[in-house]
Amino acid sequence: MPKITSVFSMRHFFVLSLALNVSLILRTMYETEQGLLCYLSKTQKGQTTQRMRLSSSSSSSTSAATTLTEAQDGVERVINLDQGDPTMYEHYWQQVGEKTTVVIRGWQHMSYFSDVSNICWFLEPELAKEIVRVHRVVGNAVTEGRHIIVGTGSSQLFLAALFALSPRDGPEPVSVVSQAPFYSSYPSMTDCLKSGLYKWAGDAQSYSKEGPYIELVTSPNNPDGNVRRSVVNRSEGTLVHDLAYYWPQYTPISSPADHELMLFTVSKSTGHAGMRIGWALVKDLEVAKRMIKFIELNTIGVSKDSQVRATKVLKAVSDSSEHAGSWEGVESFFKFSYRVMAERWKLLREAVNSSRIFSVPEYPPAHCNFLNRVFEPQPAFAWLKCERDIDDCESFLRGHKILARGGKHFGVSPKYVRVSMLDRDNNFNLFVKRLSTILL
Amino acid sequence: MPKITSVFSMRHFFVLSLALNVSLILRTMYETEQGLLCYLSKTQKGQTTQRMRLSSSSSSSTSAATTLTEAQDGVERVINLDQGDPTMYEHYWQQVGEKTTVVIRGWQHMSYFSDVSNICWFLEPELAKEIVRVHRVVGNAVTEGRHIIVGTGSSQLFLAALFALSPRDGPEPVSVVSQAPFYSSYPSMTDCLKSGLYKWAGDAQSYSKEGPYIELVTSPNNPDGNVRRSVVNRSEGTLVHDLAYYWPQYTPISSPADHELMLFTVSKSTGHAGMRIGWALVKDLEVAKRMIKFIELNTIGVSKDSQVRATKVLKAVSDSSEHAGSWEGVESFFKFSYRVMAERWKLLREAVNSSRIFSVPEYPPAHCNFLNRVFEPQPAFAWLKCERDIDDCESFLRGHKILARGGKHFGVSPKYVRVSMLDRDNNFNLFVKRLSTILL
Repeated sequence: MPKITSVFSMRHFFVLSLALNVSLILRTMYETEQGLLCYLSKTQKGQTTQRMRLSSSSSSSTSAATTLTEAQDGVERVINLDQGDPTMYEHYWQQVGEKTTVVIRGWQHMSYFSDVSNICWFLEPELAKEIVRVHRVVGNAVTEGRHIIVGTGSSQLFLAALFALSPRDGPEPVSVVSQAPFYSSYPSMTDCLKSGLYKWAGDAQSYSKEGPYIELVTSPNNPDGNVRRSVVNRSEGTLVHDLAYYWPQYTPISSPADHELMLFTVSKSTGHAGMRIGWALVKDLEVAKRMIKFIELNTIGVSKDSQVRATKVLKAVSDSSEHAGSWEGVESFFKFSYRVMAERWKLLREAVNSSRIFSVPEYPPAHCNFLNRVFEPQPAFAWLKCERDIDDCESFLRGHKILARGGKHFGVSPKYVRVSMLDRDNNFNLFVKRLSTILL
Repeated sequence: MPKITSVFSMRHFFVLSLALNVSLILRTMYETEQGLLCYLSKTQKGQTTQRMRLSSSSSSSTSAATTLTEAQDGVERVINLDQGDPTMYEHYWQQVGEKTTVVIRGWQHMSYFSDVSNICWFLEPELAKEIVRVHRVVGNAVTEGRHIIVGTGSSQLFLAALFALSPRDGPEPVSVVSQAPFYSSYPSMTDCLKSGLYKWAGDAQSYSKEGPYIELVTSPNNPDGNVRRSVVNRSEGTLVHDLAYYWPQYTPISSPADHELMLFTVSKSTGHAGMRIGWALVKDLEVAKRMIKFIELNTIGVSKDSQVRATKVLKAVSDSSEHAGSWEGVESFFKFSYRVMAERWKLLREAVNSSRIFSVPEYPPAHCNFLNRVFEPQPAFAWLKCERDIDDCESFLRGHKILARGGKHFGVSPKYVRVSMLDRDNNFNLFVKRLSTILL
């Protein structure tokens, strides 16, 4: 009997804690603040218990994890799909086993320098090789005639690009624009230090000022998944192509991207967000040198340990693609991730159709040279629209304990929200289940 | 015979290549450019061969490496002691063996998040524990009542501190000052983006403007090794204490540092510069939050891989200190590094005395609570002065193929240069040998 009593108290305590948790989140969420990353820290405190629970379930199997449903304890738990933490990919890397294990000894990679014969002296040569190789294998970017620059995630490279492309002695800060809906961090990252070199100037579609400007082209786009081209098209513009999502699990690879300045990251390609490794492919030598100088001034290079690890992970991605089926029984990374994304989009569309309150974009199918099949884009984020008379979709979903990022952060109507499609199975499955049952 | 011919041609080719190398360096060095880190990339191209040779000798034993003298081939080789690359410490970590080896599996540490229950959500909890422990073991900083913030090296934390301490809506950028000679990167790091929040205002000793300011106090100081306190002392000032060198191999630890905002880094404490891991100890919660926000906007967190590795290395440092002598035959890290630095300073002072052209500062001895002995500071850099009528010490040494960083980069007379004391044995030994033979 004492045992049963103890179990009951634990359960009561858990429900109480969860209720407190939810009320804290709701309170925190109402604090207004601009920018996405502020948002990230804004929501984190209240979600501690939930995140930690997710985290503790990460090593358990999918089937075990999906038994965690909201029916337990009679309390709906909060589903956080606000950030794009790519935890979905953990499953694949668990299957791969020891092939991507890195072993680094205490005396290795201690120096600031990786390769002083390269203008990017902090880039590990082996990482450079695997970057070239993965682009060749996938066919998503031209690397010939490009300088490769490694960064602490593509965020640092984005800032380095702004620094490198800004006129040095312009009469005023250069305008930085992007077509709405744009990545919610662009405005706050650009304006955070009130730089005299560059300044956020909003939606590229309504930009009409003369003179130099920098246009950010994210393709496929975050948040809405559309394939993009530049829209301003004036002679004095320079372009930054953010291609974080130009990989075959998200969109058909129609041709190798061939732009002046392209940004990539392991966060969204392989799911290793915690590594903080991105890379830029840059045609112009002087632009590359200035980006490198920015990284010197900003962080004096990039973690060697993560570069060593990224090398091994990218190698595995290429190996699994080149030897698909025969790679010691392990599936191609992109076949796995394509399959999971296809399944998730199918489930999402079913949920959206059954609720009749929401809609998601339709995408034109295209031929993917890498997978050699025609398919519709299946983006890393769902760009969900609340239909009928729901004006604030973020608040509406929050009322149902689903956290997503509202349209205003992306420069558009609050009728939209961005929902991460890359979370762990249990969270995603709970999300589509709950979405399908929401009634007005 | 063909073999001998081949050896002779190789040798001739090597001499030719070295001569070309030196002329390229000399040409590159004359290109004027402000700032130290620009300087870093400025010198790198010409030094490729030399650096690569150093690098290839790194895994060989000390005795083998020191046989590489300038007498070989009759050509003096270039000794680069411009940067403070702490390669000296590799020896120790080789001796430690597998104790600091890290093994990271492909599916580990993939998420952006380390600990959402901490305001610094990207800080690995185990790293936080080892940071607290190492400061307790060494007695060089108070950690109680402080928020710990991890950064991509202390460089990123320096920029985060400027962001956090700048008044948000001041009428003009806040002045950033430091007593000359100051760390040569401070001006270029501060002014690189022409921020509207803060602006470099030079030597703290001549600073007389009213209103808010930020003073950077580096103690022991880079470049001159002196123990420092703030010098401006006005009510509206805020202080950043850069304590990168406040470790017992460089200076007596007289008491635990107890300031509002303190910066540390593994680069100079354990020698793992390539990890890019630094940490800040911050008393004020709002300042800590703003620093964290800066790192979110700058790089969305800090490499998990390097944090995992830094945890293991700091643990080894504390273990080796707490179990000195009994730690499976491995010497205490600080005893090793203290001993090597003491030996190097002895050799340097002998060389300086025998040449009579140079001088180095004398430092007052003090009691070190950690080592429980009285000793004179033995800084990570030698602050060398050219005496007599040599006005440009950097150029003078360059003529002897020694690369060091001139006083003007540190805001003082070109009669001074900063010389790294942390390079590998063969480079350091060659340096003191050459220095002792320089005649006017």
